Amino acid sequence: MGRVARPEEKVCSVTPAAGAPGSTSAGRARLADVAALAGVSVGTASKALSGSGRMRPETRQRVLDAVATLGFRPNQHAQSLHAGRSWTVGLVTTDGIGRFSTPVLLGAEDALGAGKISVLLCDTRGDAIREQHHLRNLLDRRVDGIIVTGRRTDARPPLTSVAGLEAIPVVYALSPSTDTADTSVVSDDPGGTRLAVEHLLASGRTRIAHVTGPEHHAAARDRAHHAVEHLDESGLGLSTGRVHFGEWSEAWGRRAADAVLRTAPDTDAFFCGNDQIARGVADALRERGVNVPADIAVVGYDNWDTMALASRPPLTTVDMNLAEIGRIAALRLLEAIEDEASPGVHTVPCRLVVRESS
Amino acid sequence: MGRVARPEEKVCSVTPAAGAPGSTSAGRARLADVAALAGVSVGTASKALSGSGRMRPETRQRVLDAVATLGFRPNQHAQSLHAGRSWTVGLVTTDGIGRFSTPVLLGAEDALGAGKISVLLCDTRGDAIREQHHLRNLLDRRVDGIIVTGRRTDARPPLTSVAGLEAIPVVYALSPSTDTADTSVVSDDPGGTRLAVEHLLASGRTRIAHVTGPEHHAAARDRAHHAVEHLDESGLGLSTGRVHFGEWSEAWGRRAADAVLRTAPDTDAFFCGNDQIARGVADALRERGVNVPADIAVVGYDNWDTMALASRPPLTTVDMNLAEIGRIAALRLLEAIEDEASPGVHTVPCRLVVRESS
Repeated sequence: MGRVARPEEKVCSVTPAAGAPGSTSAGRARLADVAALAGVSVGTASKALSGSGRMRPETRQRVLDAVATLGFRPNQHAQSLHAGRSWTVGLVTTDGIGRFSTPVLLGAEDALGAGKISVLLCDTRGDAIREQHHLRNLLDRRVDGIIVTGRRTDARPPLTSVAGLEAIPVVYALSPSTDTADTSVVSDDPGGTRLAVEHLLASGRTRIAHVTGPEHHAAARDRAHHAVEHLDESGLGLSTGRVHFGEWSEAWGRRAADAVLRTAPDTDAFFCGNDQIARGVADALRERGVNVPADIAVVGYDNWDTMALASRPPLTTVDMNLAEIGRIAALRLLEAIEDEASPGVHTVPCRLVVRESS
Repeated sequence: MGRVARPEEKVCSVTPAAGAPGSTSAGRARLADVAALAGVSVGTASKALSGSGRMRPETRQRVLDAVATLGFRPNQHAQSLHAGRSWTVGLVTTDGIGRFSTPVLLGAEDALGAGKISVLLCDTRGDAIREQHHLRNLLDRRVDGIIVTGRRTDARPPLTSVAGLEAIPVVYALSPSTDTADTSVVSDDPGGTRLAVEHLLASGRTRIAHVTGPEHHAAARDRAHHAVEHLDESGLGLSTGRVHFGEWSEAWGRRAADAVLRTAPDTDAFFCGNDQIARGVADALRERGVNVPADIAVVGYDNWDTMALASRPPLTTVDMNLAEIGRIAALRLLEAIEDEASPGVHTVPCRLVVRESS
């Protein structure tokens, strides 16, 4: 992390030894003793202490109990690795609503919280003053690192520069940083679109309309671009005349379905930019007496259960694995804290969830 | 909180003075100087530092900047008030999904984060081992207090007893503690139900059916009980035969609407236990050619925008003010930290949002 640890930081750091304050046997016990008492391998014990490994909470708890019992303190090597660590990480969300950022946050909390790492939650509501205030606060706390997430897949500018921030590893989740020197973990939009389109092609659909959100949203623009590109490769071609930008709403899905069937009655499938649009399309088709999927297939995006399962019929849709994005962002951050940063954009694959609408 | 502050806690505590590490003018500046430089009253400056007051972030930031500039340190009185405080609060959610707990958490984060209080997020996923692990971790962090929230309004047992927890104030939000000696902040279910029923009566509805979730959920049981009670008071009476327990789903709302109109075709209003059920009812009525609200009015509960706004027509519904529940829980906690605990159950009023369905 390049910065010299202040003396009080060592005091503040909740290193595993804090489990046994005032212990007199400090330094005597070895990691091997802890591992033996906990009944795990030395490697597992080490991972449990570094907070970077994955294991069942019970296992980690056994190791932490052994640390407390033996008054174990990490050896010089571990000390130098962890000197100055506060064992806290900041989770900054710009999304007051949280439909997208919540699963990302919970995934990150899951990966971090399993260890002795605590998570400081900050909601900036997309407000620059709040962001600055929270960042100063996180720096006062001497967090080991920061994860930033938002509600959109559009790239966002790096965090407001605040004195001291440059010394702290930051990982951007879901909304990548515009600075490619930063570390970002995003959803594989091209891959997700490809899953949906290939699924429709495999089921024999050839005249596919794409109905999506506002063109100024990357999620709408990119998925439309990849859908057209992929269908062109397949030789079928989704004439760009069949891409319809609008809103992320059911009402738009209903309007678009009617418009599409007026102008292109031969349409045999709708690939939609999100599940709300797909649900609106499915409703409009049902109300026109069109059978889904027999006559026309409908595929959504997000696997937002509220929408996908309540839809009639339930929606085939693309799941972005948001919790996994948060988990991977947390692991990249833990690596960066150990001086093993991996800058650039990391993509997390999507999965297709097939239901009755296709 | 009755416990003696350990020396390192003072070092650890991020008191406002931490804004000016190593300042040499420590102790010289008075709060009045800070207030003057920030251009606010002494009272406002004090509130900004205690983190317990409400003010615009810019105002608080000006005070904090003044503190840093002057190297101000709180006086003896403030010191004794804040000795041993870590200026961190634990937010424990048992709700991995978060539709209900997220707004509560954000409301609490808003009230706490505006000050120098940091929020440690813990998600127990309703798992006892995770809860214990997180609580031990929060105690290691010497949090000043803990807010607990969940996805249901049913009372929950107090937090798993962990050594040291008894010394820390805890406030339960949305899901009250079964121990009435604890402090809980909950939604005013009787009041919310009354708002919905009175609205329907005021619009001339007299034959009101109530369709809600599973009877073993307090939210379903209580709202049904209060609806019946209130209609009996009004002399109209909602025969309990008109209360229909089922699931919190649109599919149940659709099935229930059909069943109700078969057995009680004179029904002129549906009061539903949540917005998903209400949306299902509205869909079923529309598909039967019944005009909402001209023929039959529909009122939901939750004001979950995704459901209420996408419904045809958009739903009149009861808003529980979840963010306000979180904000009040945070304020009760801050009072408890200052030894002004207010045990018992505090209710937050609901508001009725009137839309086209009634």
